[in-house]
Amino acid sequence: MSAPDPAVRTLLLVGIGAGDPELLTLQAVSAIAALDVVLVLDKPGGATDLTRMREALVRRFAGDPAPRVLLLPDPPRDRGELDRPGYSGAVRSWHHRRADLLEAALAEQLLPGETAGILVWGDPAFYDSTVRLAQELERRGTVPLDWRVIPGISSIQLLAARHRLVLHGIGEPLHITTGRRLADAGTLQHENTVVMLDAGVSAAVLLQSPEAADRDAWIAWGAALGTPSEVLVAGRLAEVIDEIGRTRDAVRAERGWMMDISYLRRGGPPGVAD
Amino acid sequence: MSAPDPAVRTLLLVGIGAGDPELLTLQAVSAIAALDVVLVLDKPGGATDLTRMREALVRRFAGDPAPRVLLLPDPPRDRGELDRPGYSGAVRSWHHRRADLLEAALAEQLLPGETAGILVWGDPAFYDSTVRLAQELERRGTVPLDWRVIPGISSIQLLAARHRLVLHGIGEPLHITTGRRLADAGTLQHENTVVMLDAGVSAAVLLQSPEAADRDAWIAWGAALGTPSEVLVAGRLAEVIDEIGRTRDAVRAERGWMMDISYLRRGGPPGVAD
Ligand SMILES: C[S@@+](CC[C@H](N)C(=O)[O-])C[C@H]1O[C@@H](n2cnc3c(N)ncnc32)[C@H](O)[C@@H]1O
Ligand SMILES: C[S@@+](CC[C@H](N)C(=O)[O-])C[C@H]1O[C@@H](n2cnc3c(N)ncnc32)[C@H](O)[C@@H]1O
Repeated sequence: MSAPDPAVRTLLLVGIGAGDPELLTLQAVSAIAALDVVLVLDKPGGATDLTRMREALVRRFAGDPAPRVLLLPDPPRDRGELDRPGYSGAVRSWHHRRADLLEAALAEQLLPGETAGILVWGDPAFYDSTVRLAQELERRGTVPLDWRVIPGISSIQLLAARHRLVLHGIGEPLHITTGRRLADAGTLQHENTVVMLDAGVSAAVLLQSPEAADRDAWIAWGAALGTPSEVLVAGRLAEVIDEIGRTRDAVRAERGWMMDISYLRRGGPPGVAD
Repeated sequence: MSAPDPAVRTLLLVGIGAGDPELLTLQAVSAIAALDVVLVLDKPGGATDLTRMREALVRRFAGDPAPRVLLLPDPPRDRGELDRPGYSGAVRSWHHRRADLLEAALAEQLLPGETAGILVWGDPAFYDSTVRLAQELERRGTVPLDWRVIPGISSIQLLAARHRLVLHGIGEPLHITTGRRLADAGTLQHENTVVMLDAGVSAAVLLQSPEAADRDAWIAWGAALGTPSEVLVAGRLAEVIDEIGRTRDAVRAERGWMMDISYLRRGGPPGVAD
């Protein structure tokens, strides 16, 4: 057992929950209080609302002296590229440019022995690239880094909590997927499906499905969960899909961004004892 | 808009995270502080360790005056019954007996206007019956009840955080299932699978699979996450399965109970940019 390497920098990936600061865990609160540097990796322009929420968290929970806040603007992505089949390749090269930025920031701005944190929306385990960034830095090995993950409440859980649902019948599986995959499949391949990263209302495809269980699907939908704009809709997909479309547009108009998530149940709503 | 019904009792289903009190959210902490009554629905005997953890949370976070703690021992289940195909039927009748107990406790012990809470292990949305209990009470309608769910950090997220993983490659789905289902399927039907409620090491079936991707599966496993007995193992399934079996037995011997969870990835470990 050797003594801890004094050159090591610590990097904490702190899940902050999917909207409401009250969703932070005690662990996340302590982690933020201990940071020397906060790294903000955000899309340029765009979701400034989300950046502002992160800044508010830092103001509320940071220690004294306040941590240095470093803005690392995301390298621009070619949107067109992302919509083509080479999607994951495009993500990968964008990913390497982000890793370069983060690596430089950590090497130049974080002193050995200090702790930096990245505040990750929701939980870092679901549809977020921060863990992969840290893995890439570790693989490169240029900045000796001790990195850890602090879980946060995901939008998946917030959706379930707000609709007061268990996301499956007794002993059933739960499938978590993307809007793109649902649209491509055109059918619910499982009893229980959560849909994230939806560019439209992909569940619309189900109403064209030859399967009755798809056409009879039940949906619990939510947007901007945990924020003051939070909206919820639930019901038979065929009956509520128009309302979801309209509500989506209204949230986007109000906040300038839209994040929504759906739980779909094949054949109808979950029963009391399902 | 009518005034709130003064006869209404509030019931909070509070997700407490899957082990460590530091996983409580600020919302859960405030909720516990506001409780008049804590309902403890635990298995008689058995997981007294978990009951003790809940009691410690109440001591740490409860308001003054301290809430009344009501122990509602689970009605005994016929284990044999649960292992037969009528599983979900057996769960249902057990479920109704639990609802009877909870209904009586709320009617007799919770004054109108008061707030009761049930501390739910992990997150109430995953493999937990408390939401269904509340749904059943609402369906019966005998006790006017305003009930809400407060999400908590699930063992799924804790596993991912401890192994520092994203639970899927870029844009891929994640499948969450039970040990029983995995054993029945004998194969990984998806790139990414989380296995909960595992009576043995069900992933063992994969080593007998005709599919190379099953036999080459990579596993990230954890038991007693968030507790002082936490253990983690990760690697090629074929190489680490014996270690997992031994470690499982050791945890059970040490604590008298065992809760473990696995993430399985078809064909090998997740790549840095997967
Ligand atoms: C890049 S992913 C990040 C997910 C995040 N790591 C989590 O655990 O929730 C963004 C997607 O998550 C979902 N999402 C995140 N926050 C949300 C919120 N507050 N309300 C609704 N959906 C949300 C949406 O499906 C959105 O497209
Ligand atoms: C009845 S389910 C409850 C799940 C819980 N609601 C959650 O969100 O984690 C119990 C199963 O959850 C998993 N589990 C819960 N707590 C765990 C822990 N601390 N460590 C490992 N697995 C855990 C195991 O798969 C266990 O069989």
